[in-house]
Amino acid sequence: MTETEFIAALRRLPLHATARGLNDDTALLDAGPLVVTTDTLVEGVHFLPIDPAQDVAWKLVATNLSDLAAKGAKPEGILLNYPLGDNAWDRAFLEGLADVLATFDTRIIGGDTVTLPPSAPRVLTVTAFGSDAAAPARSGALVGDALYVTGTIGDAGAGLAIALGAQGPAELLAAYRCPQPRLADGRILGRQVHAMMDVSDGLLIDASRMAQASNLAVSIDLASIPLSDAYSTFSGDRLAAATAGDDYQLLFAAPQDFATDATCIGAFSAGSGLTLHDSGKPVPLPPSLGYEHAPRG
Amino acid sequence: MTETEFIAALRRLPLHATARGLNDDTALLDAGPLVVTTDTLVEGVHFLPIDPAQDVAWKLVATNLSDLAAKGAKPEGILLNYPLGDNAWDRAFLEGLADVLATFDTRIIGGDTVTLPPSAPRVLTVTAFGSDAAAPARSGALVGDALYVTGTIGDAGAGLAIALGAQGPAELLAAYRCPQPRLADGRILGRQVHAMMDVSDGLLIDASRMAQASNLAVSIDLASIPLSDAYSTFSGDRLAAATAGDDYQLLFAAPQDFATDATCIGAFSAGSGLTLHDSGKPVPLPPSLGYEHAPRG
Repeated sequence: MTETEFIAALRRLPLHATARGLNDDTALLDAGPLVVTTDTLVEGVHFLPIDPAQDVAWKLVATNLSDLAAKGAKPEGILLNYPLGDNAWDRAFLEGLADVLATFDTRIIGGDTVTLPPSAPRVLTVTAFGSDAAAPARSGALVGDALYVTGTIGDAGAGLAIALGAQGPAELLAAYRCPQPRLADGRILGRQVHAMMDVSDGLLIDASRMAQASNLAVSIDLASIPLSDAYSTFSGDRLAAATAGDDYQLLFAAPQDFATDATCIGAFSAGSGLTLHDSGKPVPLPPSLGYEHAPRG
Repeated sequence: MTETEFIAALRRLPLHATARGLNDDTALLDAGPLVVTTDTLVEGVHFLPIDPAQDVAWKLVATNLSDLAAKGAKPEGILLNYPLGDNAWDRAFLEGLADVLATFDTRIIGGDTVTLPPSAPRVLTVTAFGSDAAAPARSGALVGDALYVTGTIGDAGAGLAIALGAQGPAELLAAYRCPQPRLADGRILGRQVHAMMDVSDGLLIDASRMAQASNLAVSIDLASIPLSDAYSTFSGDRLAAATAGDDYQLLFAAPQDFATDATCIGAFSAGSGLTLHDSGKPVPLPPSLGYEHAPRG
Protein backbone atom coordinates (compact mmCIF):
# COMPACT_ATOMS: atom_id res chain seq x y z
CA MET A 1 0.00 0.00 0.00
CA THR A 2 1.36 3.46 -0.83
CA GLU A 3 1.36 6.30 1.66
CA THR A 4 -1.40 7.97 -0.30
CA GLU A 5 -3.56 4.84 -0.18
CA PHE A 6 -2.85 4.31 3.52
CA ILE A 7 -3.74 7.92 4.39
CA ALA A 8 -6.89 7.65 2.29
CA ALA A 9 -7.83 4.55 4.31
CA LEU A 10 -7.15 6.39 7.57
CA ARG A 11 -9.46 9.19 6.41
CA ARG A 12 -12.29 6.64 6.26
CA LEU A 13 -11.77 5.92 9.99
CA PRO A 14 -13.21 8.23 12.66
CA LEU A 15 -11.07 11.39 12.55
CA HIS A 16 -10.72 13.66 15.53
CA ALA A 17 -11.95 17.21 14.86
CA THR A 18 -8.41 18.47 15.41
CA ALA A 19 -7.01 16.21 12.70
CA ARG A 20 -7.96 18.75 9.99
CA GLY A 21 -8.77 15.87 7.65
CA LEU A 22 -5.13 14.73 7.86
CA ASN A 23 -4.29 17.54 5.45
CA ASP A 24 -1.88 19.38 7.68
CA ASP A 25 1.50 18.72 9.27
CA THR A 26 0.10 19.33 12.73
CA ALA A 27 -3.03 18.95 14.80
CA LEU A 28 -4.31 21.56 17.23
CA LEU A 29 -5.51 20.00 20.47
CA ASP A 30 -7.84 22.02 22.64
CA ALA A 31 -9.67 19.78 25.06
CA GLY A 32 -8.54 21.19 28.36
CA PRO A 33 -5.84 19.37 30.30
CA LEU A 34 -4.79 16.26 28.38
CA VAL A 35 -3.26 13.01 29.56
CA VAL A 36 -0.69 11.79 27.06
CA THR A 37 1.02 8.42 26.81
CA THR A 38 3.04 6.67 24.14
CA ASP A 39 4.01 3.06 23.47
CA THR A 40 6.17 1.50 20.79
CA LEU A 41 5.68 -2.14 19.77
CA VAL A 42 8.50 -3.98 17.99
CA GLU A 43 7.99 -7.11 15.89
CA GLY A 44 9.89 -9.97 17.47
CA VAL A 45 10.03 -8.18 20.83
CA HIS A 46 6.53 -7.00 21.80
CA PHE A 47 4.60 -9.06 19.29
CA LEU A 48 5.30 -12.18 17.27
CA PRO A 49 5.85 -12.12 13.51
CA ILE A 50 2.98 -14.66 13.34
CA ASP A 51 0.56 -12.45 15.28
CA PRO A 52 -2.26 -11.32 12.94
CA ALA A 53 -1.95 -7.68 11.86
CA GLN A 54 -5.52 -6.98 13.08
CA ASP A 55 -4.45 -8.04 16.57
CA VAL A 56 -1.24 -5.99 16.44
CA ALA A 57 -3.34 -2.90 15.66
CA TRP A 58 -5.71 -3.75 18.49
CA LYS A 59 -2.90 -4.32 20.98
CA LEU A 60 -0.97 -1.18 19.93
CA VAL A 61 -3.99 1.02 20.61
CA ALA A 62 -5.33 -0.96 23.59
CA THR A 63 -2.06 -0.81 25.54
CA ASN A 64 -2.06 2.97 25.23
CA LEU A 65 -5.74 3.21 26.18
CA SER A 66 -4.98 1.12 29.25
CA ASP A 67 -2.65 3.88 30.44
CA LEU A 68 -5.51 6.35 29.93
CA ALA A 69 -7.84 4.02 31.86
CA ALA A 70 -5.42 4.09 34.77
CA LYS A 71 -5.80 7.88 34.81
CA GLY A 72 -9.58 7.72 34.73
CA ALA A 73 -9.45 9.56 31.41
CA LYS A 74 -11.76 9.57 28.41
CA PRO A 75 -9.90 8.68 25.20
CA GLU A 76 -9.74 11.60 22.76
CA GLY A 77 -7.61 10.21 19.98
CA ILE A 78 -4.31 8.83 18.81
CA LEU A 79 -1.28 9.61 16.70
CA LEU A 80 -0.08 6.61 14.66
CA ASN A 81 3.50 6.19 13.44
CA TYR A 82 3.21 3.39 10.92
CA PRO A 83 5.74 1.52 8.76
CA LEU A 84 4.15 0.66 5.43
CA GLY A 85 4.58 -3.02 4.69
CA ASP A 86 2.97 -5.45 2.34
CA ASN A 87 -0.57 -4.74 1.16
CA ALA A 88 -2.22 -7.65 2.94
CA TRP A 89 -0.64 -6.74 6.28
CA ASP A 90 -1.51 -3.04 5.87
CA ARG A 91 -5.13 -3.86 5.03
CA ALA A 92 -5.48 -6.25 7.97
CA PHE A 93 -3.87 -3.69 10.26
CA LEU A 94 -6.38 -1.06 9.15
CA GLU A 95 -9.24 -3.50 9.88
CA GLY A 96 -7.99 -4.05 13.42
CA LEU A 97 -7.46 -0.32 13.82
CA ALA A 98 -11.04 0.43 12.75
CA ASP A 99 -12.25 -2.20 15.22
CA VAL A 100 -10.34 -0.95 18.25
CA LEU A 101 -11.13 2.72 17.52
CA ALA A 102 -14.84 1.98 17.22
CA THR A 103 -14.87 -0.25 20.31
CA PHE A 104 -13.34 2.40 22.53
CA ASP A 105 -14.75 5.51 20.80
CA THR A 106 -11.31 6.83 19.94
CA ARG A 107 -10.32 8.87 16.91
CA ILE A 108 -7.35 9.46 14.64
CA ILE A 109 -5.58 12.76 15.31
CA GLY A 110 -2.59 12.32 13.01
CA GLY A 111 0.66 10.49 12.69
CA ASP A 112 3.44 9.67 10.27
CA THR A 113 3.99 6.86 7.78
CA VAL A 114 7.45 5.63 6.86
CA THR A 115 9.05 2.92 4.80
CA LEU A 116 11.45 0.49 6.45
CA PRO A 117 14.45 -1.11 4.75
CA PRO A 118 13.73 -4.60 3.36
CA SER A 119 13.31 -7.34 6.00
CA ALA A 120 13.53 -4.87 8.91
CA PRO A 121 11.22 -5.76 11.81
CA ARG A 122 8.14 -3.57 12.06
CA VAL A 123 8.28 -0.81 14.67
CA LEU A 124 4.94 0.86 15.43
CA THR A 125 4.17 3.72 17.78
CA VAL A 126 0.90 5.05 19.10
CA THR A 127 0.57 8.18 21.22
CA ALA A 128 -2.79 8.46 22.94
CA PHE A 129 -4.52 11.52 24.37
CA GLY A 130 -7.18 11.44 27.06
CA SER A 131 -9.34 14.18 28.52
CA ASP A 132 -11.10 14.66 31.83
CA ALA A 133 -8.53 12.67 33.81
CA ALA A 134 -9.41 12.18 37.43
CA ALA A 135 -7.17 9.46 38.78
CA PRO A 136 -4.54 9.90 41.45
CA ALA A 137 -0.93 8.99 40.71
CA ARG A 138 0.48 5.64 41.72
CA SER A 139 2.08 7.39 44.69
CA GLY A 140 -1.09 8.01 46.69
CA ALA A 141 -1.49 4.74 48.63
CA LEU A 142 -1.98 5.23 52.40
CA VAL A 143 -1.02 3.08 55.40
CA GLY A 144 -3.86 0.67 55.98
CA ASP A 145 -5.13 0.79 52.40
CA ALA A 146 -5.99 -2.47 50.72
CA LEU A 147 -4.59 -3.36 47.27
CA TYR A 148 -7.19 -4.30 44.65
CA VAL A 149 -7.04 -5.57 41.09
CA THR A 150 -9.78 -5.70 38.45
CA GLY A 151 -10.61 -8.77 36.35
CA THR A 152 -8.31 -11.79 36.33
CA ILE A 153 -4.55 -12.08 36.19
CA GLY A 154 -2.29 -14.37 34.13
CA ASP A 155 -4.54 -14.94 31.12
CA ALA A 156 -2.31 -12.97 28.74
CA GLY A 157 0.83 -14.76 29.94
CA ALA A 158 -0.86 -18.09 29.22
CA GLY A 159 -1.99 -16.67 25.87
CA LEU A 160 1.61 -15.90 24.95
CA ALA A 161 2.56 -19.51 25.70
CA ILE A 162 -0.33 -20.63 23.49
CA ALA A 163 0.76 -18.24 20.70
CA LEU A 164 4.20 -19.87 20.93
CA GLY A 165 2.76 -23.36 20.50
CA ALA A 166 1.29 -24.56 23.80
CA GLN A 167 -2.17 -26.12 23.72
CA GLY A 168 -4.84 -23.96 25.27
CA PRO A 169 -8.17 -22.21 24.76
CA ALA A 170 -8.76 -19.33 22.33
CA GLU A 171 -9.99 -17.23 25.25
CA LEU A 172 -6.47 -17.07 26.71
CA LEU A 173 -4.88 -16.39 23.33
CA ALA A 174 -7.34 -13.51 22.90
CA ALA A 175 -6.34 -12.10 26.29
CA TYR A 176 -2.76 -11.88 25.00
CA ARG A 177 -3.52 -10.58 21.52
CA CYS A 178 -6.55 -8.36 22.17
CA PRO A 179 -6.34 -6.96 25.70
CA GLN A 180 -9.37 -5.01 26.94
CA PRO A 181 -8.39 -1.70 28.55
CA ARG A 182 -10.56 -1.08 31.62
CA LEU A 183 -11.71 2.36 30.53
CA ALA A 184 -15.17 2.27 32.09
CA ASP A 185 -13.78 1.02 35.40
CA GLY A 186 -11.07 3.66 35.28
CA ARG A 187 -13.58 6.48 34.84
CA ILE A 188 -15.39 5.40 38.04
CA LEU A 189 -12.45 4.25 40.16
CA GLY A 190 -10.32 7.27 39.24
CA ARG A 191 -12.60 9.54 41.22
CA GLN A 192 -12.61 7.33 44.32
CA VAL A 193 -9.34 5.53 44.97
CA HIS A 194 -6.05 6.72 46.53
CA ALA A 195 -3.60 5.41 43.90
CA MET A 196 -4.04 3.63 40.57
CA MET A 197 -2.01 2.22 37.68
CA ASP A 198 -2.43 -0.46 35.06
CA VAL A 199 -0.81 -3.88 35.28
CA SER A 200 1.34 -4.10 32.18
CA ASP A 201 4.64 -5.62 33.26
CA GLY A 202 3.38 -8.07 35.89
CA LEU A 203 1.25 -7.84 39.01
CA LEU A 204 4.13 -8.19 41.47
CA ILE A 205 6.48 -5.69 39.82
CA ASP A 206 3.69 -3.17 39.28
CA ALA A 207 2.42 -3.54 42.87
CA SER A 208 5.96 -3.06 44.16
CA ARG A 209 6.25 0.10 42.02
CA MET A 210 3.06 1.48 43.56
CA ALA A 211 4.39 0.72 47.05
CA GLN A 212 7.74 2.32 46.27
CA ALA A 213 6.13 5.44 44.77
CA SER A 214 3.94 5.70 47.88
CA ASN A 215 6.87 5.13 50.27
CA LEU A 216 5.12 2.14 51.76
CA ALA A 217 5.44 -1.63 52.06
CA VAL A 218 2.94 -3.88 50.36
CA SER A 219 1.98 -7.44 51.20
CA ILE A 220 0.18 -9.66 48.68
CA ASP A 221 -1.76 -12.86 49.33
CA LEU A 222 -1.07 -15.19 46.39
CA ALA A 223 -4.17 -17.24 47.23
CA SER A 224 -6.38 -14.20 46.63
CA ILE A 225 -5.09 -13.37 43.14
CA PRO A 226 -8.11 -13.69 40.84
CA LEU A 227 -7.72 -16.35 38.14
CA SER A 228 -10.05 -17.10 35.27
CA ASP A 229 -11.56 -20.57 34.96
CA ALA A 230 -9.66 -20.93 31.69
CA TYR A 231 -6.34 -20.10 33.38
CA SER A 232 -7.08 -22.39 36.33
CA THR A 233 -7.62 -25.23 33.88
CA PHE A 234 -4.61 -24.25 31.74
CA SER A 235 -2.10 -24.12 34.60
CA GLY A 236 -3.46 -22.44 37.70
CA ASP A 237 0.07 -21.38 38.66
CA ARG A 238 -0.53 -18.24 40.72
CA LEU A 239 3.10 -17.18 40.90
CA ALA A 240 3.42 -17.44 37.11
CA ALA A 241 0.21 -15.40 36.76
CA ALA A 242 1.48 -12.74 39.14
CA THR A 243 4.76 -12.27 37.26
CA ALA A 244 3.48 -12.48 33.65
CA GLY A 245 2.89 -9.23 31.82
CA ASP A 246 0.24 -7.83 29.46
CA ASP A 247 -2.74 -8.15 31.84
CA TYR A 248 -3.87 -4.51 31.42
CA GLN A 249 -6.02 -4.71 34.51
CA LEU A 250 -6.26 -1.81 36.96
CA LEU A 251 -4.37 -2.01 40.23
CA PHE A 252 -5.47 0.40 42.92
CA ALA A 253 -5.18 1.35 46.57
CA ALA A 254 -8.33 2.13 48.53
CA PRO A 255 -9.68 1.70 52.07
CA GLN A 256 -10.23 -1.85 53.37
CA ASP A 257 -14.02 -1.42 53.27
CA PHE A 258 -14.08 0.03 49.73
CA ALA A 259 -17.12 -1.27 47.81
CA THR A 260 -15.92 -2.68 44.50
CA ASP A 261 -16.20 -5.60 42.11
CA ALA A 262 -12.40 -5.74 42.02
CA THR A 263 -10.53 -8.29 44.12
CA CYS A 264 -8.66 -7.38 47.32
CA ILE A 265 -5.24 -9.02 47.04
CA GLY A 266 -3.12 -7.30 49.64
CA ALA A 267 -2.49 -4.39 51.96
CA PHE A 268 -0.16 -1.44 52.43
CA SER A 269 1.74 -0.76 55.62
CA ALA A 270 4.54 1.49 56.85
CA GLY A 271 7.94 0.42 55.59
CA SER A 272 9.16 -0.58 52.17
CA GLY A 273 9.32 -3.54 49.83
CA LEU A 274 7.03 -6.36 48.74
CA THR A 275 6.20 -9.45 50.77
CA LEU A 276 4.27 -12.43 49.51
CA HIS A 277 2.21 -14.95 51.42
CA ASP A 278 -0.18 -17.73 50.57
CA SER A 279 -3.16 -17.73 52.92
CA GLY A 280 -0.93 -16.51 55.74
CA LYS A 281 2.15 -18.66 55.00
CA PRO A 282 5.21 -16.64 53.82
CA VAL A 283 6.30 -17.22 50.21
CA PRO A 284 9.80 -16.27 49.02
CA LEU A 285 9.90 -13.69 46.22
CA PRO A 286 10.58 -15.15 42.77
CA PRO A 287 13.83 -14.10 41.01
CA SER A 288 11.86 -11.88 38.62
CA LEU A 289 8.75 -9.89 39.59
CA GLY A 290 7.87 -9.15 35.95
CA TYR A 291 9.26 -7.36 32.92
CA GLU A 292 11.75 -4.58 33.62
CA HIS A 293 10.53 -1.71 31.54
CA ALA A 294 11.24 1.97 31.18
CA PRO A 295 8.92 4.69 32.45
CA ARG A 296 7.01 6.42 29.71
CA GLY A 297 5.11 9.65 29.54
CA MET B 1 22.95 1.33 28.00
CA THR B 2 20.10 -0.18 30.02
CA GLU B 3 16.65 1.40 30.13
CA THR B 4 17.30 2.45 33.71
CA GLU B 5 20.55 4.17 32.74
CA PHE B 6 18.95 5.84 29.72
CA ILE B 7 16.01 7.14 31.76
CA ALA B 8 18.43 8.37 34.43
CA ALA B 9 20.29 10.27 31.69
CA LEU B 10 17.02 11.74 30.39
CA ARG B 11 16.23 12.95 33.92
CA ARG B 12 19.40 15.04 33.81
CA LEU B 13 18.03 16.87 30.73
CA PRO B 14 15.46 19.68 31.08
CA LEU B 15 12.18 17.99 32.06
CA HIS B 16 8.83 19.56 31.37
CA ALA B 17 6.81 20.21 34.52
CA THR B 18 4.19 17.76 33.28
CA ALA B 19 6.75 14.94 33.01
CA ARG B 20 6.35 14.12 36.73
CA GLY B 21 10.05 13.30 36.86
CA LEU B 22 9.49 10.49 34.32
CA ASN B 23 8.07 8.43 37.19
CA ASP B 24 4.63 7.88 35.73
CA ASP B 25 3.15 6.14 32.71
CA THR B 26 1.54 9.35 31.49
CA ALA B 27 2.06 13.09 31.41
CA LEU B 28 -0.68 15.65 32.02
CA LEU B 29 -0.48 18.53 29.57
CA ASP B 30 -2.23 21.74 30.50
CA ALA B 31 -0.92 24.62 28.45
CA GLY B 32 -4.05 25.73 26.63
CA PRO B 33 -4.51 24.71 23.01
CA LEU B 34 -1.54 22.65 21.88
CA VAL B 35 -0.09 22.07 18.44
CA VAL B 36 1.10 18.49 18.11
CA THR B 37 3.24 16.91 15.40
CA THR B 38 5.14 13.64 15.10
CA ASP B 39 7.96 12.39 12.89
CA THR B 40 9.64 9.03 12.65
CA LEU B 41 13.20 8.70 11.34
CA VAL B 42 14.43 5.35 10.04
CA GLU B 43 18.10 4.42 9.75
CA GLY B 44 18.94 3.81 6.11
CA VAL B 45 15.86 5.77 4.97
CA HIS B 46 15.78 9.16 6.70
CA PHE B 47 19.34 9.14 7.98
CA LEU B 48 22.51 7.30 7.08
CA PRO B 49 24.04 4.59 9.27
CA ILE B 50 27.22 6.71 9.20
CA ASP B 51 25.48 9.86 10.41
CA PRO B 52 26.75 10.71 13.92
CA ALA B 53 24.24 9.89 16.67
CA GLN B 54 24.46 13.47 17.98
CA ASP B 55 23.25 14.73 14.62
CA VAL B 56 20.46 12.13 14.42
CA ALA B 57 19.16 13.40 17.78
CA TRP B 58 19.41 16.99 16.55
CA LYS B 59 17.61 16.25 13.30
CA LEU B 60 14.88 14.15 14.95
CA VAL B 61 13.95 17.00 17.27
CA ALA B 62 14.63 19.82 14.80
CA THR B 63 12.35 18.40 12.10
CA ASN B 64 9.48 18.29 14.58
CA LEU B 65 10.25 21.80 15.85
CA SER B 66 10.17 23.00 12.25
CA ASP B 67 6.52 21.93 12.07
CA LEU B 68 5.88 23.95 15.23
CA ALA B 69 7.71 26.93 13.69
CA ALA B 70 5.36 26.75 10.72
CA LYS B 71 2.48 27.16 13.17
CA GLY B 72 4.07 30.13 14.91
CA ALA B 73 4.12 28.05 18.09
CA LYS B 74 6.41 28.08 21.10
CA PRO B 75 7.94 24.63 21.74
CA GLU B 76 6.69 23.11 24.99
CA GLY B 77 8.30 19.69 24.95
CA ILE B 78 8.70 16.32 23.31
CA LEU B 79 7.93 12.65 23.71
CA LEU B 80 10.82 10.40 22.64
CA ASN B 81 10.36 6.80 21.47
CA TYR B 82 13.89 5.44 21.53
CA PRO B 83 15.44 2.09 20.60
CA LEU B 84 18.29 1.32 22.98
CA GLY B 85 21.43 0.48 21.00
CA ASP B 86 25.08 0.27 21.84
CA ASN B 87 26.40 2.39 24.69
CA ALA B 88 28.50 4.70 22.55
CA TRP B 89 25.59 5.50 20.22
CA ASP B 90 23.19 6.03 23.12
CA ARG B 91 25.62 8.37 24.87
CA ALA B 92 26.27 10.37 21.70
CA PHE B 93 22.52 10.55 21.01
CA LEU B 94 21.92 11.92 24.50
CA GLU B 95 24.60 14.58 23.90
CA GLY B 96 22.90 15.71 20.71
CA LEU B 97 19.53 15.61 22.46
CA ALA B 98 20.79 17.82 25.29
CA ASP B 99 22.20 20.22 22.69
CA VAL B 100 19.05 20.57 20.59
CA LEU B 101 16.77 20.84 23.65
CA ALA B 102 18.91 23.59 25.14
CA THR B 103 19.24 25.46 21.83
CA PHE B 104 15.50 25.62 21.29
CA ASP B 105 14.38 25.78 24.94
CA THR B 106 12.42 22.55 24.67
CA ARG B 107 11.85 19.98 27.37
CA ILE B 108 11.33 16.24 27.80
CA ILE B 109 7.71 15.29 28.53
CA GLY B 110 8.00 11.52 28.33
CA GLY B 111 8.36 8.68 25.88
CA ASP B 112 9.12 5.01 25.64
CA THR B 113 12.30 3.00 25.31
CA VAL B 114 12.41 -0.31 23.50
CA THR B 115 14.94 -2.90 22.44
CA LEU B 116 15.19 -3.87 18.78
CA PRO B 117 16.13 -7.32 17.49
CA PRO B 118 19.84 -7.66 16.62
CA SER B 119 20.94 -5.79 13.46
CA ALA B 120 17.51 -4.16 12.96
CA PRO B 121 17.72 -0.59 11.67
CA ARG B 122 17.04 2.07 14.27
CA VAL B 123 13.55 3.59 14.20
CA LEU B 124 13.14 6.74 16.29
CA THR B 125 10.03 8.83 16.88
CA VAL B 126 9.59 12.26 18.38
CA THR B 127 6.23 13.87 19.06
CA ALA B 128 6.47 17.60 19.73
CA PHE B 129 4.02 19.91 21.46
CA GLY B 130 3.83 23.65 20.95
CA SER B 131 1.78 26.30 22.69
CA ASP B 132 0.51 29.73 21.66
CA ALA B 133 0.18 28.84 17.99
CA ALA B 134 -0.81 31.73 15.79
CA ALA B 135 -0.14 30.68 12.23
CA PRO B 136 -2.73 30.21 9.54
CA ALA B 137 -3.01 26.85 7.78
CA ARG B 138 -1.39 26.26 4.43
CA SER B 139 -4.79 26.82 2.85
CA GLY B 140 -5.01 30.58 3.42
CA ALA B 141 -3.20 31.99 0.36
CA LEU B 142 -5.17 34.66 -1.52
CA VAL B 143 -5.25 35.65 -5.19
CA GLY B 144 -2.51 38.21 -5.71
CA ASP B 145 -0.43 37.09 -2.72
CA ALA B 146 3.27 36.68 -3.25
CA LEU B 147 5.08 33.48 -2.20
CA TYR B 148 8.05 33.96 0.12
CA VAL B 149 10.69 31.66 1.57
CA THR B 150 13.08 32.26 4.48
CA GLY B 151 16.82 31.58 4.34
CA THR B 152 18.39 29.67 1.47
CA ILE B 153 17.25 26.57 -0.39
CA GLY B 154 19.18 23.48 -1.50
CA ASP B 155 21.90 23.45 1.13
CA ALA B 156 20.62 20.27 2.81
CA GLY B 157 20.28 18.46 -0.52
CA ALA B 158 23.91 19.29 -1.28
CA GLY B 159 24.80 18.21 2.27
CA LEU B 160 23.25 14.80 1.63
CA ALA B 161 25.41 14.42 -1.47
CA ILE B 162 28.45 15.35 0.61
CA ALA B 163 27.46 12.86 3.35
CA LEU B 164 27.34 10.23 0.60
CA GLY B 165 30.88 11.03 -0.57
CA ALA B 166 30.83 14.18 -2.73
CA GLN B 167 33.41 16.85 -1.98
CA GLY B 168 31.97 19.98 -0.42
CA PRO B 169 32.08 22.36 2.53
CA ALA B 170 31.18 21.42 6.09
CA GLU B 171 28.58 24.21 6.07
CA LEU B 172 26.41 22.29 3.58
CA LEU B 173 26.87 18.98 5.42
CA ALA B 174 25.73 20.76 8.61
CA ALA B 175 22.61 22.03 6.81
CA TYR B 176 21.69 18.40 6.09
CA ARG B 177 22.58 16.93 9.46
CA CYS B 178 21.67 19.78 11.80
CA PRO B 179 18.81 21.78 10.29
CA GLN B 180 17.82 24.98 12.10
CA PRO B 181 14.05 25.22 12.60
CA ARG B 182 12.94 28.85 12.04
CA LEU B 183 11.14 29.16 15.35
CA ALA B 184 11.79 32.87 15.92
CA ASP B 185 10.69 33.73 12.38
CA GLY B 186 7.62 31.55 12.78
CA ARG B 187 6.56 33.37 15.95
CA ILE B 188 6.58 36.70 14.11
CA LEU B 189 5.36 35.61 10.66
CA GLY B 190 2.61 33.40 12.06
CA ARG B 191 0.73 36.48 13.26
CA GLN B 192 1.02 38.32 9.93
CA VAL B 193 0.90 36.05 6.89
CA HIS B 194 -2.02 34.39 5.07
CA ALA B 195 -0.67 30.84 4.81
CA MET B 196 2.47 29.14 6.07
CA MET B 197 4.20 25.75 6.12
CA ASP B 198 7.73 24.46 6.38
CA VAL B 199 9.73 23.21 3.39
CA SER B 200 10.57 19.65 4.25
CA ASP B 201 10.01 17.63 1.09
CA GLY B 202 11.19 20.15 -1.50
CA LEU B 203 10.33 23.74 -2.36
CA LEU B 204 8.35 22.90 -5.50
CA ILE B 205 6.26 20.10 -4.02
CA ASP B 206 5.56 22.05 -0.84
CA ALA B 207 4.63 25.21 -2.78
CA SER B 208 2.29 23.19 -4.98
CA ARG B 209 0.69 21.74 -1.83
CA MET B 210 0.06 25.23 -0.48
CA ALA B 211 -1.49 26.26 -3.79
CA GLN B 212 -3.65 23.13 -3.89
CA ALA B 213 -4.81 23.60 -0.29
CA SER B 214 -5.67 27.21 -1.10
CA ASN B 215 -7.44 26.29 -4.37
CA LEU B 216 -5.10 28.54 -6.32
CA ALA B 217 -2.38 28.37 -8.94
CA VAL B 218 1.17 29.30 -8.04
CA SER B 219 3.96 30.49 -10.29
CA ILE B 220 7.60 30.36 -9.16
CA ASP B 221 10.57 32.23 -10.61
CA LEU B 222 13.55 29.88 -10.46
CA ALA B 223 15.96 32.80 -10.78
CA SER B 224 14.68 34.27 -7.53
CA ILE B 225 15.18 31.17 -5.38
CA PRO B 226 17.67 32.18 -2.69
CA LEU B 227 20.92 30.19 -2.75
CA SER B 228 23.77 30.31 -0.27
CA ASP B 229 27.26 31.24 -1.45
CA ALA B 230 28.34 27.75 -0.47
CA TYR B 231 25.64 26.15 -2.59
CA SER B 232 26.34 28.46 -5.54
CA THR B 233 29.98 27.34 -5.42
CA PHE B 234 29.05 23.67 -4.86
CA SER B 235 26.66 23.40 -7.80
CA GLY B 236 24.38 26.41 -8.14
CA ASP B 237 21.71 24.19 -9.77
CA ARG B 238 18.46 25.96 -8.91
CA LEU B 239 16.16 23.21 -10.08
CA ALA B 240 18.05 20.66 -7.95
CA ALA B 241 17.80 23.04 -4.99
CA ALA B 242 14.07 23.51 -5.52
CA THR B 243 13.35 19.77 -5.54
CA ALA B 244 15.71 18.63 -2.77
CA GLY B 245 14.22 18.07 0.67
CA ASP B 246 15.23 18.79 4.25
CA ASP B 247 15.46 22.58 3.92
CA TYR B 248 13.22 23.31 6.93
CA GLN B 249 12.73 26.90 5.83
CA LEU B 250 9.37 28.64 6.14
CA LEU B 251 7.27 29.09 3.02
CA PHE B 252 4.48 31.64 3.27
CA ALA B 253 1.89 33.62 1.35
CA ALA B 254 1.54 37.33 2.06
CA PRO B 255 0.73 40.53 0.14
CA GLN B 256 3.14 41.67 -2.58
CA ASP B 257 4.29 44.64 -0.46
CA PHE B 258 4.83 42.59 2.71
CA ALA B 259 7.90 43.82 4.57
CA THR B 260 10.15 40.85 5.29
CA ASP B 261 13.72 39.56 5.20
CA ALA B 262 12.41 36.49 3.38
CA THR B 263 12.74 36.21 -0.40
CA CYS B 264 9.80 36.65 -2.77
CA ILE B 265 9.95 33.72 -5.20
CA GLY B 266 6.52 33.63 -6.82
CA ALA B 267 2.88 34.61 -6.84
CA PHE B 268 -0.57 33.09 -6.44
CA SER B 269 -3.34 33.52 -8.98
CA ALA B 270 -6.76 32.06 -9.73
CA GLY B 271 -6.61 28.55 -11.15
CA SER B 272 -4.66 25.50 -10.11
CA GLY B 273 -1.26 23.90 -10.50
CA LEU B 274 2.35 25.01 -10.41
CA THR B 275 4.16 26.83 -13.21
CA LEU B 276 7.87 27.55 -13.30
CA HIS B 277 9.75 30.27 -15.09
CA ASP B 278 13.27 31.61 -15.09
CA SER B 279 13.29 35.41 -15.23
CA GLY B 280 10.15 35.34 -17.36
CA LYS B 281 11.05 32.38 -19.62
CA PRO B 282 8.83 29.30 -19.06
CA VAL B 283 10.58 26.25 -17.59
CA PRO B 284 9.06 22.74 -17.89
CA LEU B 285 8.28 21.03 -14.57
CA PRO B 286 10.81 18.37 -13.57
CA PRO B 287 9.56 14.76 -13.31
CA SER B 288 9.69 14.93 -9.51
CA LEU B 289 8.84 18.04 -7.49
CA GLY B 290 10.31 16.59 -4.29
CA TYR B 291 9.80 13.71 -1.92
CA GLU B 292 6.31 12.19 -1.84
CA HIS B 293 5.52 11.97 1.82
CA ALA B 294 2.46 11.30 3.93
CA PRO B 295 0.63 13.99 5.86
CA ARG B 296 1.27 13.85 9.54
CA GLY B 297 -0.51 15.33 12.49
